[in-house]
Amino acid sequence: MILLTEDCIFCKIVKGEIPSTKLFEDENVLSFLDIMPAAKGHALVIPKKHYSTLLDMPHEELASVIEAVQKIASATMVALPGVEGFNVIQSNHEAAGQVIPHVHFHIIPRAKNDKLNFQWEHGKAEKEELEKYAELVKKEVKRGGK
Amino acid sequence: MILLTEDCIFCKIVKGEIPSTKLFEDENVLSFLDIMPAAKGHALVIPKKHYSTLLDMPHEELASVIEAVQKIASATMVALPGVEGFNVIQSNHEAAGQVIPHVHFHIIPRAKNDKLNFQWEHGKAEKEELEKYAELVKKEVKRGGK
Repeated sequence: MILLTEDCIFCKIVKGEIPSTKLFEDENVLSFLDIMPAAKGHALVIPKKHYSTLLDMPHEELASVIEAVQKIASATMVALPGVEGFNVIQSNHEAAGQVIPHVHFHIIPRAKNDKLNFQWEHGKAEKEELEKYAELVKKEVKRGGK
Repeated sequence: MILLTEDCIFCKIVKGEIPSTKLFEDENVLSFLDIMPAAKGHALVIPKKHYSTLLDMPHEELASVIEAVQKIASATMVALPGVEGFNVIQSNHEAAGQVIPHVHFHIIPRAKNDKLNFQWEHGKAEKEELEKYAELVKKEVKRGGK
């Protein structure tokens, strides 16, 4: 998934070439309301710099982004009526449903008995299978990932 | 949602009172495989200290947790066969589907044509409505949230 930043809709929002309803902005981070919201007050938090996925982000900027997620979610819980919880969802690569290849965190306000559902069918994993996966992942963690 | 840490299943995993298939551990963070996985390699990343939701976490520990999410997701993409993407999902309060009230980030490996779906029906919001919500949230962000 290669995309020049000049074609990226979120880069255009950062540059002000496409309008957005901003919630928060600092040196590294921008937050604005999703125009196709899952729920009222559905917000996005993005790094201002173009990174395709979570794995491309430097630690410091990622820390700024997740701190902004916390700030916006906290304000949303207080400010908007009827918000009783929230989901943070962040998708990477097309297989995971990522549409815009510029890292973004969704903050989706929730209320009891809303019609949203981000649950999954619970699988069952045997101990041996889990241990096999864990060995593979741990080896790669030690190697430092890609 | 009040829960004593001695009753918390994730605190018990941290303390080793309940076994887990660990992937990574440092001073602040523990990662282990979900025993009821949405997909093979479904991992959890939690702070070792008990915090109920994302909003309760100090910035420094949150930065450590999200850095570990990055580390585990990166290793999972490389180490496990067929992983073409991943979702990070983090739920807060019962209304959002949070079952265990100890902050946790799900890392769910994805492949094209798997049967998972964390998408939502896209709503449509009028500019005036977005601006109204933004005003409320921005005022609260300035006030410092709760």
